[in-house]
Amino acid sequence: MDVESLVLRIEPVDREAAAAAQRLLDGKTKPLGSLGRIEEIASRLASIYRATRYATSPRAVVVMAADHGVAGQRVSAYPQTVTAQMVHNFAAGGAAINVLARTMRAQTVIVDMGVAGSNDWDGSVRRCALGAATADLSLGAAMTLAQARAAVATGAAIAGELAAQGARIVATGEMGIANTTAAAALTAVFTGASAAAVTGRGTGIDDAGLARKIAVVERALQCNRPSASRPLEALAAVGGFEIAGLVGVILGGAAQKLAVVLDGFITAAAALAAIAIAPCARDYLFASHRSAEPGHRAALATLGLDPLLDLGLRLGEGSGAMLAMPLLDAAAAIMAEMASFESAGVSGAGESA
Amino acid sequence: MDVESLVLRIEPVDREAAAAAQRLLDGKTKPLGSLGRIEEIASRLASIYRATRYATSPRAVVVMAADHGVAGQRVSAYPQTVTAQMVHNFAAGGAAINVLARTMRAQTVIVDMGVAGSNDWDGSVRRCALGAATADLSLGAAMTLAQARAAVATGAAIAGELAAQGARIVATGEMGIANTTAAAALTAVFTGASAAAVTGRGTGIDDAGLARKIAVVERALQCNRPSASRPLEALAAVGGFEIAGLVGVILGGAAQKLAVVLDGFITAAAALAAIAIAPCARDYLFASHRSAEPGHRAALATLGLDPLLDLGLRLGEGSGAMLAMPLLDAAAAIMAEMASFESAGVSGAGESA
Repeated sequence: MDVESLVLRIEPVDREAAAAAQRLLDGKTKPLGSLGRIEEIASRLASIYRATRYATSPRAVVVMAADHGVAGQRVSAYPQTVTAQMVHNFAAGGAAINVLARTMRAQTVIVDMGVAGSNDWDGSVRRCALGAATADLSLGAAMTLAQARAAVATGAAIAGELAAQGARIVATGEMGIANTTAAAALTAVFTGASAAAVTGRGTGIDDAGLARKIAVVERALQCNRPSASRPLEALAAVGGFEIAGLVGVILGGAAQKLAVVLDGFITAAAALAAIAIAPCARDYLFASHRSAEPGHRAALATLGLDPLLDLGLRLGEGSGAMLAMPLLDAAAAIMAEMASFESAGVSGAGESA
Repeated sequence: MDVESLVLRIEPVDREAAAAAQRLLDGKTKPLGSLGRIEEIASRLASIYRATRYATSPRAVVVMAADHGVAGQRVSAYPQTVTAQMVHNFAAGGAAINVLARTMRAQTVIVDMGVAGSNDWDGSVRRCALGAATADLSLGAAMTLAQARAAVATGAAIAGELAAQGARIVATGEMGIANTTAAAALTAVFTGASAAAVTGRGTGIDDAGLARKIAVVERALQCNRPSASRPLEALAAVGGFEIAGLVGVILGGAAQKLAVVLDGFITAAAALAAIAIAPCARDYLFASHRSAEPGHRAALATLGLDPLLDLGLRLGEGSGAMLAMPLLDAAAAIMAEMASFESAGVSGAGESA
């Protein structure tokens, strides 16, 4: 499906269902509002699912991997070969995302969106590569507009397939050495913040590496002149294959009326591009956690999302998104199972004994 | 068991096991420290369990309920009868804590530590009442020293029983109309903060109610003169039956080498008394969440605990403790299941390709 058709399929969430959920919450045996953000999650899920009772399983985390030409500029503490090594680790089930997805009962969908090297993946990795790596975004466009469109379509198709299998939540994850550089450039484009403000240490570069990385992001913005008003072009210019794929997962998830749970900084950058393309998609998104990467704060502010967790995570892969799953489960269970003052025979606030 | 014998059974945690866990975490396929507080949880659990692999199930939440004579001073938005009504709701399985404990696979242990009224509990409520309610702590001691000792012994016995059944975690919960007043008084005693600084709106009293509640806490401190250096006496003077029982659960959990997960403000007040009695117990504690109650911040600072969640909860019952369970599960799974750089054949930071 082309991006324009996908955008047309995204409907606004149902604010009446959210209000109905809040009325039910207000009648449950607890002081008004005392479940805090669990109540917010419960009513937002109601607005997405158009119902006050809903399931949060089955669910999946889509982990998209790709390489970045800009890795040649030494912006990462790790060599580019780690991307392929980690995809093998995902396939073998030994990475953090595998462990956390099992713990949180989510299916893991691993997608090669363009990992460098001759990759003899086993059958558990989807082969959707758009190239061996993007071009160096500090020297010109990372990919063609046609590649960006193809990546979005790939992600949307995967979201559609998961929805057809019954998924209620799609979580986003990624792997790609140097992809915090692309995410920083995208965040600068869509938030208006400076390269210095949104560029961080990623997997752990030193001071000299950080200075080099900021200069690389600045060059990327100067040579490509990406604009927030032309989001697909900006995504092609300074994005990555896995980031563009995640834009498709986000838009496709919203089109399928799924809750879409973001992970950290990279997936927030994808979300910035997604809501620039389709503003309605924003109301399907949950920010799972606040990353230690400095650009994440700016991205979340522009997304208008308050993260559920703040655990100092800076791993990616979808790890933070998995840790937030039980909060959505809790909200669903409260809606479905908790007694009302009336049903339980409990006195309300201000009533006499 | 008397309190003094209980204190002698609490051993320091094993810091060498924590260091061994951190070394294993540093060898796993992720940037150093990138799992943030999950790594902190993992190494703290190792120090408690004396092992780098451990289970976090089975587990239980002990919900202790009692009434407070000070409720007669109109410090709560709810009538005192709600305590008994909520215990019936717990027994019927319809309260928030029941829903969340089921979602997080924890056993719920409901304990009547002194609920007012003629209470025809079904068999699921443990009858450990020390009276129909405490005396009004703003007029004198809430309970006798013998009652405080008996409450601590009750809590410790329950923790011992759970440990004997194989529990790995004991979580703390409570119900008691007016118990934020007792918790505020205890927090003032053990943190040195003023009554005004640690007294909040509880279940939702208005401005006049808050002013009245602060004055009540001030009177409680003036007439009882509780001292942090005599913690059992302070607990008897301005505590509650359920709070004293939770002191026993905390000390008993630590003596049994269980992870003890606190809920919000009331359970933090119990923890303040517990660590004043046995400082070693502190290292067995996790603060699950930051409550909306203002006194909780002061209590956490004195406990030296940084809460895992910040979700605007102000319900009690153990609800926040349940929401933190999956973070402990995640830490255990990362320790047990995640691959190392060596086992997965992944290059480390700074290695060449």
